[in-house]
Amino acid sequence: MKPLVYVLNGSNLNMLGKREPHLYGTTTLAQVKERTEALATELDLECDFRQTNHEGVMVDWLQEAFEKDAAVVINPAGFSFASIPVLDAVKLIRQPVIEVHITNIHQRDEQYRHSLISLVARGVICGLGVDGYLLAVRAVAGAIQRVQV
Amino acid sequence: MKPLVYVLNGSNLNMLGKREPHLYGTTTLAQVKERTEALATELDLECDFRQTNHEGVMVDWLQEAFEKDAAVVINPAGFSFASIPVLDAVKLIRQPVIEVHITNIHQRDEQYRHSLISLVARGVICGLGVDGYLLAVRAVAGAIQRVQV
Amino acid sequence: MKPLVYVLNGSNLNMLGKREPHLYGTTTLAQVKERTEALATELDLECDFRQTNHEGVMVDWLQEAFEKDAAVVINPAGFSFASIPVLDAVKLIRQPVIEVHITNIHQRDEQYRHSLISLVARGVICGLGVDGYLLAVRAVAGAIQRVQV
Amino acid sequence: MKPLVYVLNGSNLNMLGKREPHLYGTTTLAQVKERTEALATELDLECDFRQTNHEGVMVDWLQEAFEKDAAVVINPAGFSFASIPVLDAVKLIRQPVIEVHITNIHQRDEQYRHSLISLVARGVICGLGVDGYLLAVRAVAGAIQRVQV
Amino acid sequence: MKPLVYVLNGSNLNMLGKREPHLYGTTTLAQVKERTEALATELDLECDFRQTNHEGVMVDWLQEAFEKDAAVVINPAGFSFASIPVLDAVKLIRQPVIEVHITNIHQRDEQYRHSLISLVARGVICGLGVDGYLLAVRAVAGAIQRVQV
Amino acid sequence: MKPLVYVLNGSNLNMLGKREPHLYGTTTLAQVKERTEALATELDLECDFRQTNHEGVMVDWLQEAFEKDAAVVINPAGFSFASIPVLDAVKLIRQPVIEVHITNIHQRDEQYRHSLISLVARGVICGLGVDGYLLAVRAVAGAIQRVQV
Amino acid sequence: MKPLVYVLNGSNLNMLGKREPHLYGTTTLAQVKERTEALATELDLECDFRQTNHEGVMVDWLQEAFEKDAAVVINPAGFSFASIPVLDAVKLIRQPVIEVHITNIHQRDEQYRHSLISLVARGVICGLGVDGYLLAVRAVAGAIQRVQV
Amino acid sequence: MKPLVYVLNGSNLNMLGKREPHLYGTTTLAQVKERTEALATELDLECDFRQTNHEGVMVDWLQEAFEKDAAVVINPAGFSFASIPVLDAVKLIRQPVIEVHITNIHQRDEQYRHSLISLVARGVICGLGVDGYLLAVRAVAGAIQRVQV
Amino acid sequence: MKPLVYVLNGSNLNMLGKREPHLYGTTTLAQVKERTEALATELDLECDFRQTNHEGVMVDWLQEAFEKDAAVVINPAGFSFASIPVLDAVKLIRQPVIEVHITNIHQRDEQYRHSLISLVARGVICGLGVDGYLLAVRAVAGAIQRVQV
Amino acid sequence: MKPLVYVLNGSNLNMLGKREPHLYGTTTLAQVKERTEALATELDLECDFRQTNHEGVMVDWLQEAFEKDAAVVINPAGFSFASIPVLDAVKLIRQPVIEVHITNIHQRDEQYRHSLISLVARGVICGLGVDGYLLAVRAVAGAIQRVQV
Amino acid sequence: MKPLVYVLNGSNLNMLGKREPHLYGTTTLAQVKERTEALATELDLECDFRQTNHEGVMVDWLQEAFEKDAAVVINPAGFSFASIPVLDAVKLIRQPVIEVHITNIHQRDEQYRHSLISLVARGVICGLGVDGYLLAVRAVAGAIQRVQV
Amino acid sequence: MKPLVYVLNGSNLNMLGKREPHLYGTTTLAQVKERTEALATELDLECDFRQTNHEGVMVDWLQEAFEKDAAVVINPAGFSFASIPVLDAVKLIRQPVIEVHITNIHQRDEQYRHSLISLVARGVICGLGVDGYLLAVRAVAGAIQRVQV
Repeated sequence: MKPLVYVLNGSNLNMLGKREPHLYGTTTLAQVKERTEALATELDLECDFRQTNHEGVMVDWLQEAFEKDAAVVINPAGFSFASIPVLDAVKLIRQPVIEVHITNIHQRDEQYRHSLISLVARGVICGLGVDGYLLAVRAVAGAIQRVQV
Repeated sequence: MKPLVYVLNGSNLNMLGKREPHLYGTTTLAQVKERTEALATELDLECDFRQTNHEGVMVDWLQEAFEKDAAVVINPAGFSFASIPVLDAVKLIRQPVIEVHITNIHQRDEQYRHSLISLVARGVICGLGVDGYLLAVRAVAGAIQRVQV
Repeated sequence: MKPLVYVLNGSNLNMLGKREPHLYGTTTLAQVKERTEALATELDLECDFRQTNHEGVMVDWLQEAFEKDAAVVINPAGFSFASIPVLDAVKLIRQPVIEVHITNIHQRDEQYRHSLISLVARGVICGLGVDGYLLAVRAVAGAIQRVQV
Repeated sequence: MKPLVYVLNGSNLNMLGKREPHLYGTTTLAQVKERTEALATELDLECDFRQTNHEGVMVDWLQEAFEKDAAVVINPAGFSFASIPVLDAVKLIRQPVIEVHITNIHQRDEQYRHSLISLVARGVICGLGVDGYLLAVRAVAGAIQRVQV
Repeated sequence: MKPLVYVLNGSNLNMLGKREPHLYGTTTLAQVKERTEALATELDLECDFRQTNHEGVMVDWLQEAFEKDAAVVINPAGFSFASIPVLDAVKLIRQPVIEVHITNIHQRDEQYRHSLISLVARGVICGLGVDGYLLAVRAVAGAIQRVQV
Repeated sequence: MKPLVYVLNGSNLNMLGKREPHLYGTTTLAQVKERTEALATELDLECDFRQTNHEGVMVDWLQEAFEKDAAVVINPAGFSFASIPVLDAVKLIRQPVIEVHITNIHQRDEQYRHSLISLVARGVICGLGVDGYLLAVRAVAGAIQRVQV
Repeated sequence: MKPLVYVLNGSNLNMLGKREPHLYGTTTLAQVKERTEALATELDLECDFRQTNHEGVMVDWLQEAFEKDAAVVINPAGFSFASIPVLDAVKLIRQPVIEVHITNIHQRDEQYRHSLISLVARGVICGLGVDGYLLAVRAVAGAIQRVQV
Repeated sequence: MKPLVYVLNGSNLNMLGKREPHLYGTTTLAQVKERTEALATELDLECDFRQTNHEGVMVDWLQEAFEKDAAVVINPAGFSFASIPVLDAVKLIRQPVIEVHITNIHQRDEQYRHSLISLVARGVICGLGVDGYLLAVRAVAGAIQRVQV
Repeated sequence: MKPLVYVLNGSNLNMLGKREPHLYGTTTLAQVKERTEALATELDLECDFRQTNHEGVMVDWLQEAFEKDAAVVINPAGFSFASIPVLDAVKLIRQPVIEVHITNIHQRDEQYRHSLISLVARGVICGLGVDGYLLAVRAVAGAIQRVQV
Repeated sequence: MKPLVYVLNGSNLNMLGKREPHLYGTTTLAQVKERTEALATELDLECDFRQTNHEGVMVDWLQEAFEKDAAVVINPAGFSFASIPVLDAVKLIRQPVIEVHITNIHQRDEQYRHSLISLVARGVICGLGVDGYLLAVRAVAGAIQRVQV
Repeated sequence: MKPLVYVLNGSNLNMLGKREPHLYGTTTLAQVKERTEALATELDLECDFRQTNHEGVMVDWLQEAFEKDAAVVINPAGFSFASIPVLDAVKLIRQPVIEVHITNIHQRDEQYRHSLISLVARGVICGLGVDGYLLAVRAVAGAIQRVQV
Repeated sequence: MKPLVYVLNGSNLNMLGKREPHLYGTTTLAQVKERTEALATELDLECDFRQTNHEGVMVDWLQEAFEKDAAVVINPAGFSFASIPVLDAVKLIRQPVIEVHITNIHQRDEQYRHSLISLVARGVICGLGVDGYLLAVRAVAGAIQRVQV
């Protein structure tokens, strides 16, 4: 049985490709999903890719990942900056948690600079566009499978 | 001629493997160099890997990278947090600059949390141990060579 | 076909008339809806008036308004002060967004003084009671229909 | 007819006993429910014990408590620190509201130290483990029933 | 006798149409005066429209409005952010005071974000361009005349 | 021999019933003592109830409690907010320390909001009036005697 | 020739008795002038009592006092909190400068708590109502005339 | 029977005349006592003049003043800046409380600038040397006896 | 026709030579005017040198400079630190604006350290005494006339 | 007659050896006294070693040291961080004052990091355990006796 | 022998003309050197013009200037904002020190706004491009040679 | 073989005796070296005394001390306040590290008050002039040799 990785996307990421394209590019979330699943398969990981605009749903999914002992790649988006419920749910996870941001949040406006989730994630990748998802999946594979990243 | 990437390491990274191993692990910088160069070769990049404890030398090297139009992977270490000269020199670079930290700096003491370099680097990878170097080289290859990361 | 304006109400506004009447008055949200719709009709606007206590639902509705290219009058209420998801969703909207607060939030307790939504709304009206909704609808009509406000 | 007290639990408390046991202990929420209901019965109170990970649901329940004129014991958990919607909904309640935290939040990390709910609750009990629920129910009984706590 | 409303304009508003047109548009203050007076007449209000660059003159005029028991629409402009004398004079007024800003001040530089006058005005309208004056006059009429805004 | 609990009261609590009755009620400290001792007896605890206006005396008493291995219920009153000597003395205690405030200090003026003692007490009860003393004694009994609180 | 004392009053003090009487009482400035002049005469001082709403005029008067080597009693009112021009002009004065506030400004809202003028005045009297003027004149007499205050 | 005024002096004021004479002058506290008592007698007040280095004793004395319904002139000295016990005891007093500082504390080092006692005293006099005591006694006489200050 | 430069002086600069000579020296403003006009003539500039204690007058003059398309050398003095009206008026100017301070304001007291005007002036010269005026005129000539400074 | 040095110990230091031994070690204050007195004798100093939990007593002792013109070694302990009375009393001392802390306070929790006493002591020694007392006595001897430390 | 002025340039100024030309223009440092030396010669000053990226070298040079009793014109560039070693070395200089910044640093990003060197330089010139060097040399000549600037 | 102690001096300490003698005295660093070496010999320690203005050299030396397992006495001078590279290098050292400052840095300007090095040094000695070096060597001897300090 292959190790499981949840790839979880927060608020408004379903608008990827439509929303602020000068910041986020024109790739859609469906395309990200496809590329991410392909790499996961190549690295022998099972991948569950989801998106929600509802904080409570994100918490439910993280609890589910905890129950299944999955690793997590999370782009918390709008839940990054003030959501203690998501922060607490991330703490549950025993497998590696890699946080991804498409943009370099350190260069954005004040309210987008300090991710709470970074306080508990194992690693953080930001500013590398949708490639960040792929690198995060490699990092998970490296940590779990002990393969070369 | 292969694209060039400078992999630059700041203060005290020559002590890697000896210094605070509970934080940084036991891999030495020589081992990181070897793994990084191997991956660069595989990705068809020319790699120049260096370390210095001297801020001024780091500035000189970044100016050199600018002159050679190289990409840069930088672990600024102790120069991350208050060095405007390094910040200014990073701004010179026209090719992608990826900042790497071995630890997740957001979880460390106050004086290690806010990297100035992140204000100007394209992307940031932290908390993934020495794997961060490899992922950064992949990110550079993806951006320059337009290959799958 | 008439231009469309979403009039969106955030958390606890369904309690209008029952909640802190010394602050919010005794008019109910149903009455506000009626007056707002009447004015919209008079100004030749199609009006969709809603309320939710769920941040995620508010985000969904704003994405819907974006898809329909609607203008938005929003009283974000409890979502004003810390909700990045709502902030991000408001940024999607291409038509005018007018933010309304029934009370003058600058005179209230610290946690009610700084609306994040004001950072992205075109205009803000506060302190004018439920009349604020009507003035906001006029402002939308003025901006879209190019009529005298 | 017996006075009614809602005992409302916020995000991730369904993981009690599984989550950070060094902080929260190994008692499960089902066990807390059982002990709380037993004491409520003994003190001649009707008790409605619930948990949710969804902020909007917590707001709905508080509005429901307001409609039924119930007292409230609330452990807002992750909703304590940044949720204005929950804060506003707590203000609706006319009967005593007692806030409970299992840990002493004043001793935790910065983001867990300042509960917004404390600005509007009548009383606050923290650091006494799950016993806090029982003491809160006693406090409600003392205030409503005028019995010795 | 018709109710009286003072429409008072602060520093540099005499340059409207010439000053930072990308922020303030090309309408001149004379044009704003004309439109405002026309609407006031329509709403059966007497309107006294003035501008000054002198803080002390603004204070004198507000005292005059107090003596005549007038309502006030005020665009304090440069006096918004640090003038306690104007703040104190606004407090004198017994009729409604509506503060208007042509731009959305919450989106401007730090020194333009926090109006002291908002601490004492009944309502605030900002970001709606010169339409803000008209909406403010409507708000005054609604409050004084008890007509539909 | 029964377990011992010190119930220690800080500055101005001897004026209870006379001082700011809208905040503190009309019950006197003698009455609180009586009720507290009665409950302690019922719960099979030995209770030593004292009050002082002198910080140094409070420190002496806490050292005495340490020497006798007593539990402590403390209402530090004016010593809550800036007294490091009392804070240090509380740290000595090996048995449970429960801090009590008659009012909800989070709702009071700035200088009364942050108790230093809460940084080291096991638990904190505030806003429940003099009932807080009784609940604190119950909490001590629960922790020491392992009885139902 | 008798020593000269300027008694200078800042913005809105001409409204004394009409403005916020719950704070400032019902005595008018004309009455204060009369009582102040009477006491000055009794203490053998020449008194020049004035009021202005114009910061620049206050500066001119202070320069005039400097030229005449007068002592100054100043109630800067609205000029207390942000006026560097008045602050600089007060620094010119070689004779004693006594600052008076009718209310205890330390108990008022944030923007009224920190008088810049106090940084350079010799003494400050606040919270004693219009009696503050008389005590200030006594203080001037004591300092200049070397009489018992 | 004459009205009673306590004149209470805080820490280190027994060193007056010896301590930092460039700040405090060379008058001793005994001389201040003598002058204060003389003026009190002249104004038909009974005066009780005391000094202590012990915060707890100051609290005891203020409670005593409360019991005797005395007015209070207080130079809290070192107790001004961080003593909540003294602050709370001052709140007890029903007669006028006038705070005196020999120096203008607004011009001293940071730790001497913000008196907590000013938050509750009726009036404050500072910077007028030991004359401040006499003016404070006059202020008390004016308030209690309704005589000209 | 020669290019025009306004040399504008703010509050209290008419006291130059009399006011705080240890800071500002003994040269009078008349002497500064003379030296400035002489250099302007030498550099083929028309110079209009003025001083005012009235913020509103300074605003009027800056608007006048804007109307005449003049360059501006401004020593805003007391208007530097909190005057938004002057700041806004400086923004009007299309020709170079050079700000001058006689002292090095970075070395003075807190309230004199941060000039708002520096946020919009092209250049700033401080600490060079009255020579700063001459250097500023040279800078204007260099920028407008394209001559060697 | 030998020079006199007071060695003064603040709150809770009588518990040395019992209190937080991981921080303070197991040496008792009696042992420190013995070692300090022995070294003082060796260095030809008269030594008076005391401890108190009462701030007022510490002030009294410092005044006594001033009267006897003694040098002072002080471990203010809990009086370090907020006691202005002790700070003021230390200022009285004309002979050298050396402050000692057993632990390195810069490494402790926020409330233990900033000693007010350091603002007025001549020198500070911290983090060297009870050896700090001996080094402080040597420093006093070096300064007073002009011997090699 | 002619008076000596060191013109010292900090980090990355060797890239002038290549680095961020929209901020710094296209003039190279060699051209600045030439123009500066020419003016120095004209003003009868000996000029030593240097650049370094190494903080320690800048300190060495400033010590050298101190040894030779030279005046200093310094553009500290990246050493402006956090280098205490350079700050301390500047303090050594007995002749005038003029600090130059090519851009108006008050208008740049936060980390470039507060030069530490300004705390000890005699004068500061910023925002005037490379003309700032020439004006600084004039200022030195004016101060040392007592010539007209 | 004798235990080794490095005595390392930071920027500008080579100017000791020439630089700000009112702060640092007239003793030169050569004299300090001589006295320190003499005491080290007496205490049977090997002493290596050095100074540098270059941060990177200080880092190199600390790494060298780590390699030789030496104790360190360090006066970081200008490297105290913002140098993370030196901070990180100090962390390497396994033997005692004692930080020395000649002046009492707590009494100096803001930028000299908070040493980063104190966060990791075992002990800190400041304000005792060059005697501080000798006391630090004693402290090292006491800790390593277990001799009486």
